[in-house]
Amino acid sequence: MPLVRIDLRRNPDPDFARRAGEVVYAAMRATINVPEHDNFQLLTEHDRNHLVYDTQYLGIARTEALVIVQITLNEGRTLEQKKLLYHDIAAGLQRQLGVRPEDVFINLIEVKKENWSFGNGIAQYAP
Amino acid sequence: MPLVRIDLRRNPDPDFARRAGEVVYAAMRATINVPEHDNFQLLTEHDRNHLVYDTQYLGIARTEALVIVQITLNEGRTLEQKKLLYHDIAAGLQRQLGVRPEDVFINLIEVKKENWSFGNGIAQYAP
Amino acid sequence: MPLVRIDLRRNPDPDFARRAGEVVYAAMRATINVPEHDNFQLLTEHDRNHLVYDTQYLGIARTEALVIVQITLNEGRTLEQKKLLYHDIAAGLQRQLGVRPEDVFINLIEVKKENWSFGNGIAQYAP
Repeated sequence: MPLVRIDLRRNPDPDFARRAGEVVYAAMRATINVPEHDNFQLLTEHDRNHLVYDTQYLGIARTEALVIVQITLNEGRTLEQKKLLYHDIAAGLQRQLGVRPEDVFINLIEVKKENWSFGNGIAQYAP
Repeated sequence: MPLVRIDLRRNPDPDFARRAGEVVYAAMRATINVPEHDNFQLLTEHDRNHLVYDTQYLGIARTEALVIVQITLNEGRTLEQKKLLYHDIAAGLQRQLGVRPEDVFINLIEVKKENWSFGNGIAQYAP
Repeated sequence: MPLVRIDLRRNPDPDFARRAGEVVYAAMRATINVPEHDNFQLLTEHDRNHLVYDTQYLGIARTEALVIVQITLNEGRTLEQKKLLYHDIAAGLQRQLGVRPEDVFINLIEVKKENWSFGNGIAQYAP
């Protein structure tokens, strides 16, 4: 159910964005009970003029390697789960792809379970 | 008021995405009381590396023809209305464009009425 | 914390989108207490087939110069603050870039403070 949008600067490796998405999916599986196969992602690479970021907000030194992850998902995850998710995404991106943890920006948008249709025009998660 | 984002793989027909948007607009008009002319959409076509989807989640066989529809709209629609909306979008995409119903993924993000400005810097829907 | 998405038709000026983003950031600073340096934006320029808008909804005459601004931010801004934000974005885009106020469409998505990580895998705003 999560719908993941990942935005980043154009990477010379054509597989980079997709591999970043795999890390995000693995982190969601490990920390917030996302079911196996529940993997839907939109990846966008931008040129310099179309991805704007601050290099120091909250004392964090960001570079043009910034990865912005915005996840729409069902409401109800605890604060503890969210913290684990943030940690695992940043740690995974560092381990798998060499992304500096400072360069991982994450945002969650929470919605109701009835706000999804996974195919066939049916609200599969609705009560 | 709905702001519709539609994401799909690049289609050889340059009108395909726009026509998919017309189906979504018609479904919103028919099922969730979206007013005439309230039609604002952002359509994005992706290559293989930038649209990730699962081919079997919840037992639904998806293909690269997947259409992902994310609609930001005012809160307050009933579950019944949402179910009708999902049905009409999937049925319309099949009828008008030959999209398999399995290949229609929909998500709703609900916001407050005061969260919109339709022009002139005014919150037209605010109380 | 706000994550700003700006979508518009492709502009001949390669700096136009970025400059529009600067106006939005300045308006957020001035009206809704966004901290200095809290500036993260994703800008997308579309061709004619990929940005759909109505030319008359609510009696507002829109053109292809439409600028769509969708801001994800923390919940809790008052209606008065939101009204000021809408006004300042539209006024700033007109003053700085010659955008007609009719051509400024704004939407806010509100989330919890704990729904952000600004880097290092930490929920900097969580309680």
